[in-house]
Amino acid sequence: MGLLTHLSNKGEAHIVDVSDKAETKRVAIARGQIVMDAATLALAVEGQAKKGDVFGVARVAGIMAAKKTHELIPLCHPLPVTKIAVDLEPDANLPGVRATAEVSVTGKTGVEMEALTAVGVALLTIYDMLKAVDRGMRIEGVELVEKRGGRSGEWRRDEMDKNG
Amino acid sequence: MGLLTHLSNKGEAHIVDVSDKAETKRVAIARGQIVMDAATLALAVEGQAKKGDVFGVARVAGIMAAKKTHELIPLCHPLPVTKIAVDLEPDANLPGVRATAEVSVTGKTGVEMEALTAVGVALLTIYDMLKAVDRGMRIEGVELVEKRGGRSGEWRRDEMDKNG
Amino acid sequence: MGLLTHLSNKGEAHIVDVSDKAETKRVAIARGQIVMDAATLALAVEGQAKKGDVFGVARVAGIMAAKKTHELIPLCHPLPVTKIAVDLEPDANLPGVRATAEVSVTGKTGVEMEALTAVGVALLTIYDMLKAVDRGMRIEGVELVEKRGGRSGEWRRDEMDKNG
Amino acid sequence: MGLLTHLSNKGEAHIVDVSDKAETKRVAIARGQIVMDAATLALAVEGQAKKGDVFGVARVAGIMAAKKTHELIPLCHPLPVTKIAVDLEPDANLPGVRATAEVSVTGKTGVEMEALTAVGVALLTIYDMLKAVDRGMRIEGVELVEKRGGRSGEWRRDEMDKNG
Amino acid sequence: MGLLTHLSNKGEAHIVDVSDKAETKRVAIARGQIVMDAATLALAVEGQAKKGDVFGVARVAGIMAAKKTHELIPLCHPLPVTKIAVDLEPDANLPGVRATAEVSVTGKTGVEMEALTAVGVALLTIYDMLKAVDRGMRIEGVELVEKRGGRSGEWRRDEMDKNG
Amino acid sequence: MGLLTHLSNKGEAHIVDVSDKAETKRVAIARGQIVMDAATLALAVEGQAKKGDVFGVARVAGIMAAKKTHELIPLCHPLPVTKIAVDLEPDANLPGVRATAEVSVTGKTGVEMEALTAVGVALLTIYDMLKAVDRGMRIEGVELVEKRGGRSGEWRRDEMDKNG
Repeated sequence: MGLLTHLSNKGEAHIVDVSDKAETKRVAIARGQIVMDAATLALAVEGQAKKGDVFGVARVAGIMAAKKTHELIPLCHPLPVTKIAVDLEPDANLPGVRATAEVSVTGKTGVEMEALTAVGVALLTIYDMLKAVDRGMRIEGVELVEKRGGRSGEWRRDEMDKNG
Repeated sequence: MGLLTHLSNKGEAHIVDVSDKAETKRVAIARGQIVMDAATLALAVEGQAKKGDVFGVARVAGIMAAKKTHELIPLCHPLPVTKIAVDLEPDANLPGVRATAEVSVTGKTGVEMEALTAVGVALLTIYDMLKAVDRGMRIEGVELVEKRGGRSGEWRRDEMDKNG
Repeated sequence: MGLLTHLSNKGEAHIVDVSDKAETKRVAIARGQIVMDAATLALAVEGQAKKGDVFGVARVAGIMAAKKTHELIPLCHPLPVTKIAVDLEPDANLPGVRATAEVSVTGKTGVEMEALTAVGVALLTIYDMLKAVDRGMRIEGVELVEKRGGRSGEWRRDEMDKNG
Repeated sequence: MGLLTHLSNKGEAHIVDVSDKAETKRVAIARGQIVMDAATLALAVEGQAKKGDVFGVARVAGIMAAKKTHELIPLCHPLPVTKIAVDLEPDANLPGVRATAEVSVTGKTGVEMEALTAVGVALLTIYDMLKAVDRGMRIEGVELVEKRGGRSGEWRRDEMDKNG
Repeated sequence: MGLLTHLSNKGEAHIVDVSDKAETKRVAIARGQIVMDAATLALAVEGQAKKGDVFGVARVAGIMAAKKTHELIPLCHPLPVTKIAVDLEPDANLPGVRATAEVSVTGKTGVEMEALTAVGVALLTIYDMLKAVDRGMRIEGVELVEKRGGRSGEWRRDEMDKNG
Repeated sequence: MGLLTHLSNKGEAHIVDVSDKAETKRVAIARGQIVMDAATLALAVEGQAKKGDVFGVARVAGIMAAKKTHELIPLCHPLPVTKIAVDLEPDANLPGVRATAEVSVTGKTGVEMEALTAVGVALLTIYDMLKAVDRGMRIEGVELVEKRGGRSGEWRRDEMDKNG
């Protein structure tokens, strides 16, 4: 049970004590995608070309959500994040939109949840802005790509996949 | 451009005017899943059997997130939701956990985003609580299952799939 | 188990469905008190006489907290409350401060939790503003005084006490 | 003292009781501007022409802030707003940017504060995004333009100015 | 008046300047209880034995509230807390539930308010989840047990009581 | 484009990376005013003299808003602010109220936005509390007065005006 650090000895949820961990620079990168009809994507991209709003609003939503991570995920520590970037790329092959988020902090815990939350909320925002024309959109592949810093050091998905 | 009701005539983002829509009962059901190592799932399920915390915390997180939807998704209307239920089922075949959320309101707009947000945040919370043992987990298939009520009436994914 | 309406058939937490309940006017009144050294109370009251700040800040905190009730209490419905009043009275006999809150709504569920939350946070704010001189203060007797409206009708603590 | 409805008989702050007011459609329009160096405005407009971000981010910020009005302004009622639109226009004559916000609700109280908050936060966001090049920017003329609906009926600034 | 550090020289509320205080490890422990009918407690405990939800939801609510302390208590500093644990124990002698919360931070101010807020909101959540069967429950004895760290050093209630 | 640090190379909004900036003490002072009818000001001041509420509530609102700055302004970093003070002075010459806010932090970025947000929301709160008697009030001159600390060092408006 000691493996699940969110659970106390009695198995009850708590925010784990990181008081004595060192403050180090930590980075996390996450990604995900939303799959939609080709016609829906075309509408979003045209809007983007003209006014930038679908992608622009979703990017802001992802950034703001990363700052709310500790309010959404009950056992996350609040963290003074030092960088948040959300990238959204239309991909005609899905068809849909690929999201990537990178978050940094100098702190005692990592920012994986902040990066994953940014991706998740950016994709939900795209769903919201396009749902009037396509209710069947689907969010896929929300996952951590890479983390650096902290006691557990570096982790990369591609190495996991190679070794797995 | 009129198809994308979140965009004004100039293509700028705004919260669409629903002042003159009727208040009707609306329901939305969404689902999604998180895929993990079989050993990770076993750990979560054992914890569940003994203390209930992983699933219990994620369920509460999903419910509370549904109430925050309009703070997360920039162009969502705030709504006095009348029901939120989040169901989490371990599935050894994934292996992982399947999430379903049902949200109701008597209001002028639907609650699809509330149901999708509940699913998304419940799954992110599972990731958070298990990430110490498995950083490679992946959220998949976050999608609307069904909506009822409102001007556009009923929508069901299975009928879309049959006809699509 | 059916008595505990926050628990579903499986005993899992959810926000109970009130979609089909009528909107009626509902009122709830709650109270509580904070007990402190007589010297601490004197300091607060003097401050009050001159500038009003200890009591004024706590009153605003209670009002704002009532509006946040559904963010704090996981299974509370969000409600468009129509009235919030917080009254704070120094009482040399405690010695300390007595708080009362009254909240109204026209809605499908009651506002007991909003009134109790207003009292609780107003008293915590008094603690915060006076703790530099008295860490031993204690919050006591936070309870519902009365509720009106809704299916379960009127409830008054004094009648409970008479009959109990 | 009865003129200031936010103050109770004892002059203490409270959220006034609107339980018995009728739900009517209400609209409010507010405006304001931010004055800056001509070179700063040019930078913002060029960015706008290419990527839309300065104006796009500020518009989203204003919309989201309108939904937070009752969390920011202590004695505002929470309201299920039905429309929020924020318009931002560069004006070389200021030089600077003019903001206008329109908010609607079907409710028991008006949305003047929501419209003013949207304008205020949109302008603060423009300040934030341009402050690296111009710390001397100044927000001016944040005011209500018009309100309709509710017991006090219609109010227009231009008529006030004519009669004033 | 200098004793009340939340009041400026003019007696006006402000967040006191801690810029020049050292960052040290600080811990606070608070407790409180909710008193109820024996039958209500039995219902909660049975639910607990089967599904864990009443206690599980209240524990999560207390943890999340601790992270919101600076949003609730107007003059509290925001703090990157490093540990939050909430313990809830049924006590047939009350009859009712005893709550204890422990919060840590490495920071410039203490976390007494965070611990007290966690206790208060956990107890309010128990009230909410059981109120359908017992509106007469009462929250009692919410108080600081102990604090360590910071300029004022250690404080323990039991020593106060001995000396008081 | 490099001048606008909120825009990435592609011109997309992001929270700029301050991971490698030093933590230094930073202070910002902002000001603004609300202009109203002389009769409205008299009402507010009388209320102030008796009960302190109009100014007291607005001061608390400004302080609490400063702590929410990163939730309101999309690209602001969250910061553990160490001091917030809001001063409100009636000025019969406007006629109206002058607001000043001072915010400090020991951090990697400045607190200009926190000070400006405190001023803006304090003035909006005054509008809210007096709008029943005067809808024509107008917020003017919201601007930075001074900042100290950080890489860009000291900035003072009066020096800008001398040199400008």
